[in-house]
Amino acid sequence: MTTETLTNKQWRLKQRPVGEPSAETWEFTQAEVPSIKDGQVLIKIEYISVDPAMRGWLNDAKSYIAPVAVGDVMRAGTVGKILESKLEGFEAGDYVGGYSGVQAYDVSDGTGLYKIDPNLAPLPYYLGVLGMPGMTGYFGLLNTGEPKEGETVVVSGAAGAVGGLVGQIAKIKGCRVVGIAGGPEKCQFLIDELGFDAVIDYKNENVKAGLQKACPDGVDVYFDNVGGDILDDVLTQINLKARIVICGAISQYNNTTPVKGPSNYLSLLVNRARMEGIVVFDNAKEYSVAAKEIAGWIQEGKVKVKDHIVEGIDTFPDTLMMLFKGQNFGKLIIKVGD
Amino acid sequence: MTTETLTNKQWRLKQRPVGEPSAETWEFTQAEVPSIKDGQVLIKIEYISVDPAMRGWLNDAKSYIAPVAVGDVMRAGTVGKILESKLEGFEAGDYVGGYSGVQAYDVSDGTGLYKIDPNLAPLPYYLGVLGMPGMTGYFGLLNTGEPKEGETVVVSGAAGAVGGLVGQIAKIKGCRVVGIAGGPEKCQFLIDELGFDAVIDYKNENVKAGLQKACPDGVDVYFDNVGGDILDDVLTQINLKARIVICGAISQYNNTTPVKGPSNYLSLLVNRARMEGIVVFDNAKEYSVAAKEIAGWIQEGKVKVKDHIVEGIDTFPDTLMMLFKGQNFGKLIIKVGD
Repeated sequence: MTTETLTNKQWRLKQRPVGEPSAETWEFTQAEVPSIKDGQVLIKIEYISVDPAMRGWLNDAKSYIAPVAVGDVMRAGTVGKILESKLEGFEAGDYVGGYSGVQAYDVSDGTGLYKIDPNLAPLPYYLGVLGMPGMTGYFGLLNTGEPKEGETVVVSGAAGAVGGLVGQIAKIKGCRVVGIAGGPEKCQFLIDELGFDAVIDYKNENVKAGLQKACPDGVDVYFDNVGGDILDDVLTQINLKARIVICGAISQYNNTTPVKGPSNYLSLLVNRARMEGIVVFDNAKEYSVAAKEIAGWIQEGKVKVKDHIVEGIDTFPDTLMMLFKGQNFGKLIIKVGD
Repeated sequence: MTTETLTNKQWRLKQRPVGEPSAETWEFTQAEVPSIKDGQVLIKIEYISVDPAMRGWLNDAKSYIAPVAVGDVMRAGTVGKILESKLEGFEAGDYVGGYSGVQAYDVSDGTGLYKIDPNLAPLPYYLGVLGMPGMTGYFGLLNTGEPKEGETVVVSGAAGAVGGLVGQIAKIKGCRVVGIAGGPEKCQFLIDELGFDAVIDYKNENVKAGLQKACPDGVDVYFDNVGGDILDDVLTQINLKARIVICGAISQYNNTTPVKGPSNYLSLLVNRARMEGIVVFDNAKEYSVAAKEIAGWIQEGKVKVKDHIVEGIDTFPDTLMMLFKGQNFGKLIIKVGD
């Protein structure tokens, strides 16, 4: 196998966005894939993860991870197949997960690369329920949300990659689970397919009134993916010693004005409640344990998976925007194609 | 001893304030003190505690404690002397603490009443460092802030009853302590008398710049008494796994517009930090342990006490406003007088 004839396709950060990413944000480049050196592997990327966190990586600000540099290939979680290896521990034909970015091929020195088994689960699962979103939901809910049997757990972005799993794990733990999602189709899916106890369609319902109805015993755990007004609404309904897990705030990521802070945060005082942020990477050492447990739940039919796969790496800028418009339904993934 | 000749002076809630309490909020009433029945005591109130929490008690909203009813004597922590007792366990001459309210005399059935020893500490201490503010600072810092030796602890309202003690306990625990207070006199006091490592005068300094200078290693624990912009400034400087104790938000209590939520709350996510509310009453069972430890620190000279005593129950409406104008310097207390 030679690499001579391979042409890479790459989406690079051209200019940091103010507000929503747009056509000016990205540059599409093509280039010949270089031949690999000793200590490197060549990966054909098959699936690219499209996640809300990407928006944060575009900002030139101190955060839990360095921003993507202008001119660099956009960072993204990926799964792919090794075409050629000069790196010990990896062979041609191996499937690997990692952060190869939004491109069709990657020449890697193995940093952050790990083997995955395509026979154990479909490849896209390794970007979703068994990947970063899955780990985020698992550790965020169990370690920080600390749900107890009989408690009420509310999750926003409930039809998304993280939210859907959070709700299902909360059900496994014996909680009453209420999902907040946009649109009747997603809400119906949460009830019918994922077994949520109640849902609130934030696009068509008053969220505070919906919470009052759906949470007659108040809210013990809120897993927040969206921030904004919904966080404020939930704060009015929390119980004593409630736990609010701050996983994300997708409603605020494209703000050009300051982030809307939660006006009702003094409910934390009244209710002796806590609000705590999480970052999935902190749990890296325990990923394998979590993935094994989640895979078991999938096999038992206790966790169902919904992926939203878009074909073609060329769609990346538009596909990313689907997240912020609430247009994805399940874990959003790009299938690179040939 | 008879009660026939005693006239009570009482401040009652006349009308719930919108924004700042004003002359229209209060009604001053005088009435003959009734004679006590079996199971009651008559208390001559000597000192009345004036606390930021009082503002919250005026709102007709669900909170950690019922609001004061319109027409009722204003709720307040008090210390006084029993003049007459028909209640087992209390005798004339006993000194007692409790919640007798803003009045000169109280006829009580003993609810919430507890004996105090005027020989162990001056009476006003039982409203401050050995009372509700002391317990708030002690349990809020130690149980929720969880300061560790060598960490940086920032406290706002640092020259107030709670803040001053929080800073001194943090020093005892081996922390670097930074106080935020208003005006050079208070700031100098924190350094010279209470042993703070650094101070920020929020009335005359840029708080964010001050924090950057005073906290070269970032902020591990923030004990917040004020909310508003200062909370937002501190959020920009917190460390990984920082703990923010929400004790109060005096800057927001008189708002007629919605409370300013912390715009920078996503710093909790970036830093995997937590923000947690506290209410002192949750620790009632452990008050005596805490009071004993604090009293020990006072005896050893490790904790210094600053009370701000205003003479005369007639001053109550104006004295209360001193809190919101930052005019108190130490624990604010009214000495009832004769």
